[in-house]
Amino acid sequence: MNYRKVGKWGLKISELSLGSWVTFGNQLDIGGAKEIVREAFKNGINFFDTAEAYANGMAESMLGEILKEFRRSDIVVSTKIFWGGNGPNDRGLSRKHLIEGIWGSLKRLQLNYVDIVYCHRPDPETPIEETVLAMDYIIRSGLALYWGTSEWSAEQLESAHKACKELNCIPPIVEQPQYNMLVRKRVEKEYQPIYEKYGMGLTTWSPLASGVLTGKYNNGIPEDSRLAKFPNLKKHLEESGILSEQTFVKLQKIQKIADSLDAKLSQLALAWCLLNPHVSSVILGVSKLEQLHENLKALEIKEKITKDIADEINKILEEE
Amino acid sequence: MNYRKVGKWGLKISELSLGSWVTFGNQLDIGGAKEIVREAFKNGINFFDTAEAYANGMAESMLGEILKEFRRSDIVVSTKIFWGGNGPNDRGLSRKHLIEGIWGSLKRLQLNYVDIVYCHRPDPETPIEETVLAMDYIIRSGLALYWGTSEWSAEQLESAHKACKELNCIPPIVEQPQYNMLVRKRVEKEYQPIYEKYGMGLTTWSPLASGVLTGKYNNGIPEDSRLAKFPNLKKHLEESGILSEQTFVKLQKIQKIADSLDAKLSQLALAWCLLNPHVSSVILGVSKLEQLHENLKALEIKEKITKDIADEINKILEEE
Amino acid sequence: MNYRKVGKWGLKISELSLGSWVTFGNQLDIGGAKEIVREAFKNGINFFDTAEAYANGMAESMLGEILKEFRRSDIVVSTKIFWGGNGPNDRGLSRKHLIEGIWGSLKRLQLNYVDIVYCHRPDPETPIEETVLAMDYIIRSGLALYWGTSEWSAEQLESAHKACKELNCIPPIVEQPQYNMLVRKRVEKEYQPIYEKYGMGLTTWSPLASGVLTGKYNNGIPEDSRLAKFPNLKKHLEESGILSEQTFVKLQKIQKIADSLDAKLSQLALAWCLLNPHVSSVILGVSKLEQLHENLKALEIKEKITKDIADEINKILEEE
Amino acid sequence: MNYRKVGKWGLKISELSLGSWVTFGNQLDIGGAKEIVREAFKNGINFFDTAEAYANGMAESMLGEILKEFRRSDIVVSTKIFWGGNGPNDRGLSRKHLIEGIWGSLKRLQLNYVDIVYCHRPDPETPIEETVLAMDYIIRSGLALYWGTSEWSAEQLESAHKACKELNCIPPIVEQPQYNMLVRKRVEKEYQPIYEKYGMGLTTWSPLASGVLTGKYNNGIPEDSRLAKFPNLKKHLEESGILSEQTFVKLQKIQKIADSLDAKLSQLALAWCLLNPHVSSVILGVSKLEQLHENLKALEIKEKITKDIADEINKILEEE
Repeated sequence: MNYRKVGKWGLKISELSLGSWVTFGNQLDIGGAKEIVREAFKNGINFFDTAEAYANGMAESMLGEILKEFRRSDIVVSTKIFWGGNGPNDRGLSRKHLIEGIWGSLKRLQLNYVDIVYCHRPDPETPIEETVLAMDYIIRSGLALYWGTSEWSAEQLESAHKACKELNCIPPIVEQPQYNMLVRKRVEKEYQPIYEKYGMGLTTWSPLASGVLTGKYNNGIPEDSRLAKFPNLKKHLEESGILSEQTFVKLQKIQKIADSLDAKLSQLALAWCLLNPHVSSVILGVSKLEQLHENLKALEIKEKITKDIADEINKILEEE
Repeated sequence: MNYRKVGKWGLKISELSLGSWVTFGNQLDIGGAKEIVREAFKNGINFFDTAEAYANGMAESMLGEILKEFRRSDIVVSTKIFWGGNGPNDRGLSRKHLIEGIWGSLKRLQLNYVDIVYCHRPDPETPIEETVLAMDYIIRSGLALYWGTSEWSAEQLESAHKACKELNCIPPIVEQPQYNMLVRKRVEKEYQPIYEKYGMGLTTWSPLASGVLTGKYNNGIPEDSRLAKFPNLKKHLEESGILSEQTFVKLQKIQKIADSLDAKLSQLALAWCLLNPHVSSVILGVSKLEQLHENLKALEIKEKITKDIADEINKILEEE
Repeated sequence: MNYRKVGKWGLKISELSLGSWVTFGNQLDIGGAKEIVREAFKNGINFFDTAEAYANGMAESMLGEILKEFRRSDIVVSTKIFWGGNGPNDRGLSRKHLIEGIWGSLKRLQLNYVDIVYCHRPDPETPIEETVLAMDYIIRSGLALYWGTSEWSAEQLESAHKACKELNCIPPIVEQPQYNMLVRKRVEKEYQPIYEKYGMGLTTWSPLASGVLTGKYNNGIPEDSRLAKFPNLKKHLEESGILSEQTFVKLQKIQKIADSLDAKLSQLALAWCLLNPHVSSVILGVSKLEQLHENLKALEIKEKITKDIADEINKILEEE
Repeated sequence: MNYRKVGKWGLKISELSLGSWVTFGNQLDIGGAKEIVREAFKNGINFFDTAEAYANGMAESMLGEILKEFRRSDIVVSTKIFWGGNGPNDRGLSRKHLIEGIWGSLKRLQLNYVDIVYCHRPDPETPIEETVLAMDYIIRSGLALYWGTSEWSAEQLESAHKACKELNCIPPIVEQPQYNMLVRKRVEKEYQPIYEKYGMGLTTWSPLASGVLTGKYNNGIPEDSRLAKFPNLKKHLEESGILSEQTFVKLQKIQKIADSLDAKLSQLALAWCLLNPHVSSVILGVSKLEQLHENLKALEIKEKITKDIADEINKILEEE
């Protein structure tokens, strides 16, 4: 396993990491989750990501119960605050919710501090100075070592850094955006000045575009698949053009490249994310041990992707 | 129940809230207070206001005993520091009293922190930098999440914000002024630049002008009424023109509007306060369950007040 | 008892206060000290001053044991750090000694915090930024509410305030100089710009000039008196001109004024210190209950000193 | 024993101090180490240096166990953070490693705080602002009183001080470089502006150049000697010109001066380091009680080195 710095900063995380979204507390019970976390760690994964919102806190509780067996400095644990419940102050990035939220997360995680705490979304209803001062408080109180954002626009990140400078607050070091072969613009274009000016790194989610990049939807939606179960997700993917005939055509071409590398399409898709040097870690969602092992092989595939192959893939992806 | 942001800030409080002045520890014992707080919370009230001065701390002790049964993040609790006793350092906004005061309040409230701590009055004897640094200390120590002021002039608020900027201190987010149909100037005129420059919100007290806006004094002071019991209050209301023939004339006209809305005068008076978008919450003083229910209906009345009706009320109020 | 603000700041201390230098742990055992502290408090004294150096910490231990019976917010307790022992880091105003010193003092005092911590002397061997940052740390950690200096020159105070401004540190609010009828220059001349620019107050020591202002040395040094026991002190007083024929001549004239006010010379000398509005409190050294009562009467004498009488006294003091 | 200030700062350390590198946990068990620490302290040594890296933390554990018997303020304890283990975040100057590292060190040392925490090396992979903010956090949390660096270039020190100023962080006060008769450039030339601008002091290591300055290698490498056991060290010394014929020629000349002073070459070499006023303390590595006593005599030798003798030594050292 390679470890990358988070942007310009000193923290190092494994190129592939383990998320707990969808899986922990839903597809996985504590036994299954423990098995996967242990195997991930054994294979060099040191970064474990969760959020107060996942399975209403149950994902944090499970992760905390499991991580007790590791040496604290061997792991990098992150959580995200935004959706903590249904009360008027249970959501968003107010000082009240951020501080009450991180306290709740740490209790469930059975930790004294997380390594990274993310603002899970931007909150246009709260002034950036309130959020920035609260994050600074969380770090200076020792409840987290670093902070980041998730799905913020470049403009919102700019305003956060500006407020940090004005208020003498510790700035965010990492963004957690969606990034995959089919969703590229923000990471590859919009954030460019952010990398340069602030040295922020990325931990990226949805590397397989909700499963589309496994190719399993190329010939229709199988029963029992996630898209069959969640019609809203299907609708969203269709409307954003991710789930489309055009996509299937491209994926058939990329499948051939995968074949030539002796790789599954999903492995190639994961490996492709890591070609971007701004990506510090690609977060995996894994519900079975075999799936973990399959995904980990993406690291070997990555080594086989020459400049020419990468260009070829990108050319296919950019076809209209 | 609607929830409003406190000015531009991220904290959200219910449009109507429950105060403990006059009632807790005076008209209400712990049983009665508990009944009212529970009912208020059940009806969506999430903001509970008290002060170290109310009933010599007994209001805080009662509120703390009652609030134990709620989830901390579901409620917004505020207290106010200024009058803590008779000793030379028991009053005002010195660092000594502010810090010793909040410690005392938190003990009585059985809380680790309040959501908002107010400077209950301005203190011309203490330099603003001392007060501002002490409030900053209280927030950075985690004893309160936000701070505010009560009955400060716009000029005093300006000087507080200026000192905060100079000393890198967290600024106040909310003022608690008197505001009702008969006392309007400060909120509607004087604070205008404060709203615009600093985004402060308001939690307002005395929405019924010590009962005058219930109409019960229109025909003289009934025995057993508050004004009969507290001649000083009566005198103050007379001298400030609140208790006057001119008022009674206006109230009789406004009573007619209330009638047409199927509302009590008091309900219309409460609803009227909420027409001002700078008001985040109107603090109710309630000593009986029926009174609480009656007051809560103001929210329905508010929906019936069209622009035309509001204009008509204000025209009556501005008659000379 | 009157209470004065400490300079422009919000803290209020009694015009007369109780020191523990020379007396606690030397002339007074715990029983005697307790009697005097209780009587002082009963008479309105709320300010109690000590230092880590007094009786090698025993003065703090005794004061702490006694003060346990008071409500914390009723008293203002100060200590001073500089001479904590004989080790290389036991003296001066280094960060190491200041922080280790205050921890030691608080343990002996059985307190969580003192109201004021003084730098007992200037330390030319330690850069002012080190001292200022350490005092700021002490305050922001809650170990003291305010800080001050003792026997610093105006120039040293200037440099401290300048460093505070540059380093965003909380500035000192009070100086503790020697001040009495015979030692006036620093308080009356040198500090003038300090009062104006920074609003510092004064708590003054040696109001009776080591007993000279009781008049008891006018006719020679009595056996058993302090000057008989401490030849170095006598020498110092002689060399600085305090103990001199010229002084005795003046004191005989002032004695007559005292007689006319029905006062002892010592009472007049104490009252005279309080005529200076920059003096917040005059620290008494008392070893007997009667002495305390005698000194407290200075407050009544002060009321009798008209502008004319004050001028007359000062004219005598300024005679060459 | 003389005590010197650390640069311009208020902390005072003994001219000779005790390191734990190589010796603690290697050549010395707990019994031997205890004997040496006690004897060192008895002879006036108050500064004890260790690092998380020494004997994989065992040096800290041993030192902590021994130092329990001393009064905390009598000793100055330092540790260094950089190499804490083999995990991806166990090395370097990231916020994660610095904070987790100091926590680990303090546990092993059984201390609440160290006096000085050093960044054991520069870390070009971590931005200086991250390191500086983390050191500031460590100091403001009370885990250390001062911080320093070890083997940083003047340019790196400049950038640290610049970042401290910009971010309102407490700056480093001390560097720990190698310094001896054969390695002089950095201390005597490169750091010159650092002394002048920032008043940093030095605690220096390797005063005997890995034993070369004892003269024991003048006639070849004895079996059982350190250079025989560690061929890499030997190679490094040869390549850097320290272990060379030219050196032996010089040492024979300096031996004669030593003889004339009735000193061993090693004692003269130690004494020579202390001639540099920027050196606050020379750190001794001692594995036997006799060696400690022998080294301590360097203090007497130092008194015998006149200006002329010093010039003569330096002339010999500068011969080409």
